[in-house]
Amino acid sequence: MKTINLDHLACSPIATEVREAMLHFLSVDVGNPLSKHVFGEKPGEAVENARTAVAKLINANPEEIIFTSCGSESNNLAIKGIAEAYSKKGRHIIASPIEHHSVLHPLKRLEKLGYEVSWLTVDRDGRVDPEQVAMLLREDTILITVTTASNEIGTVEPVKEIGKIAREKEKILHTDGAASAGSIPIDVKDLNVDLLSLAANTFYGPPGTGALYVRKGIRVTPLIEGGIQERGLRAGTHNVAGIVGMGAAATLAHEKLIDRREKVLTLRDKLIEGIPRDVSDCFLTGHPVERLPGHASFCIKFIEGESILIHLNFLGMAATSGSTCSSEALKVSHVLDAIGIDPTWAQGSVVFTLGIDNTDDDIENLLAELPPVVDKLRKMSPLMAEHGG
Amino acid sequence: MKTINLDHLACSPIATEVREAMLHFLSVDVGNPLSKHVFGEKPGEAVENARTAVAKLINANPEEIIFTSCGSESNNLAIKGIAEAYSKKGRHIIASPIEHHSVLHPLKRLEKLGYEVSWLTVDRDGRVDPEQVAMLLREDTILITVTTASNEIGTVEPVKEIGKIAREKEKILHTDGAASAGSIPIDVKDLNVDLLSLAANTFYGPPGTGALYVRKGIRVTPLIEGGIQERGLRAGTHNVAGIVGMGAAATLAHEKLIDRREKVLTLRDKLIEGIPRDVSDCFLTGHPVERLPGHASFCIKFIEGESILIHLNFLGMAATSGSTCSSEALKVSHVLDAIGIDPTWAQGSVVFTLGIDNTDDDIENLLAELPPVVDKLRKMSPLMAEHGG
Repeated sequence: MKTINLDHLACSPIATEVREAMLHFLSVDVGNPLSKHVFGEKPGEAVENARTAVAKLINANPEEIIFTSCGSESNNLAIKGIAEAYSKKGRHIIASPIEHHSVLHPLKRLEKLGYEVSWLTVDRDGRVDPEQVAMLLREDTILITVTTASNEIGTVEPVKEIGKIAREKEKILHTDGAASAGSIPIDVKDLNVDLLSLAANTFYGPPGTGALYVRKGIRVTPLIEGGIQERGLRAGTHNVAGIVGMGAAATLAHEKLIDRREKVLTLRDKLIEGIPRDVSDCFLTGHPVERLPGHASFCIKFIEGESILIHLNFLGMAATSGSTCSSEALKVSHVLDAIGIDPTWAQGSVVFTLGIDNTDDDIENLLAELPPVVDKLRKMSPLMAEHGG
Repeated sequence: MKTINLDHLACSPIATEVREAMLHFLSVDVGNPLSKHVFGEKPGEAVENARTAVAKLINANPEEIIFTSCGSESNNLAIKGIAEAYSKKGRHIIASPIEHHSVLHPLKRLEKLGYEVSWLTVDRDGRVDPEQVAMLLREDTILITVTTASNEIGTVEPVKEIGKIAREKEKILHTDGAASAGSIPIDVKDLNVDLLSLAANTFYGPPGTGALYVRKGIRVTPLIEGGIQERGLRAGTHNVAGIVGMGAAATLAHEKLIDRREKVLTLRDKLIEGIPRDVSDCFLTGHPVERLPGHASFCIKFIEGESILIHLNFLGMAATSGSTCSSEALKVSHVLDAIGIDPTWAQGSVVFTLGIDNTDDDIENLLAELPPVVDKLRKMSPLMAEHGG
């Protein structure tokens, strides 16, 4: 049975060009960019070329890119790094409530350490209001953090509008671009963001490599200390092959952004139209238009999302429910809670993220299989009985 | 010209078996171990198998292994993670002065945050005295950290003796095993250590993958927060290929430890005998016997180590001077300073770390080339003139 990948944000294939670029640095030129001898030369050049490629994807300067081991590390470095570096200036942070756990958990820790977080509200579509950001700004505000787009409900946030306000008021703005880079155009200069997190695996690069854009002039206290790598902002032996892969993936993502976008957009719209039509008591979560091109997420009443995933997996279709990182940790997603979804609906969260390997057949397959799966589960479900459905 | 690698601690080749194991997870089974569908299955199994393999190398239990992105991250997680988790119990730490920068820098940061570090002294060979550890222990001591062996002078520390004291007094002991694992037998139960840092690239695994052993019952505050990966102690998308590579490398290291050790030991002893014999004003640094099997480090008077490296590189030989991570950052190594080497000698530090790909010819080559390089440099050196040499 062919397996259909409908969970690209968690599991994307690695592009052939990416893998081939990596292989060279796992076989021929294995070395440490810091070494002052021949074994360090090619790895050193390759890391700098990758830095240039990643910078180009988001219109940054190469020296503003810090390589990390994943998007979560980038988020932790941004949040904790700014909090520590600017603690003398203030201890107030403004954040959206629909951030990834790798933004939320560091914020919760900072709250325990005496920082104050003003949580934005979001509307039913999951959008924050830039005006609210402006209203919450204080003299002691040292950081604003709002995701570029939600990995869970697909909503693209008005980061550019927030960036305008932040720059005017000389406040630092971080955005988690891990779910967005390669899917939508991101231009850090146009957005006026100061920090932006990236994860290679979300644009067909290798899992376990990430980057943080840190605008020139912004100070960040390192999370991993001890070496002079990455301008002293991130110590540790470079994962040269992973970084090279991220660079190759960034180049492809930059070149093919429009093509890739169009392809998944067409497929996605079939899901957005077809699923609520064919499945009763089901609606789209997140913004209907301002959303990631490959992202289709739904709530299906009186069913547990996890049961749907298990049945779909049995039928050869891979999807997810809520945030990848939290699916074992929480029953009801904090994002669905923030947009005001009743728990009866929220537990039935199912998220499809499409990629360049998806076909019309994949979509037809899902549209054919999902309604009977839902019917079957509802007949079995104790929740249905409980709620008299 | 063949290039001779005499800098294995920084740049080791990746073993063929390791690369092949990795390749599968960069091509066929690319996925996220957390995913609850078919794409997560094989990566999930592979990560757990790698965990078992790494645990076996150091006689730990698999659930005591936390995968990280490098040895530096492991050291940072251990030091800061224990400091934060046990801060209510105390804020006193005992540390050796010859630790890697990824141990030292976190300690310096903790000092700024109000923690107190008692620095051990080391003898001329770089050994700490377990009795001094016992003397410095206090009610509020929450951590002792002493490297398993110095990457810079090769000295193997009496960690077992320190472990005995620590366990008796119920104190937590961390050791940085990054330079040692795969080179000397390490048994965390026999050593009585509570945390041990590892880096895959030091035993022919991929650069950019590491692990931290955390003994059952020991609490560690995570450095990278946000996901349930690695028992909640290290969030972030797994670098599955890197982890699989580390596992394969650990299995090889475990099986071949004795053979590899014997091979490099024989070659190393030729350097330890030949270099001080053929180069005037030159001595071995670190312990003459209790040292890493592939490690030969020297101080050569009235010369800058960096000049030697440049000349050796020109002749096709790769070596290092001082700690890899610090070679751009500092003129005189903190390790050589701690063992009481006069700066006139210390600046002439040169470190050779041998590996399984080295041959007798490599050693002969170095022994033939080094003395004329030193002579040439001394003739050119302003330091010679200055000191009337």
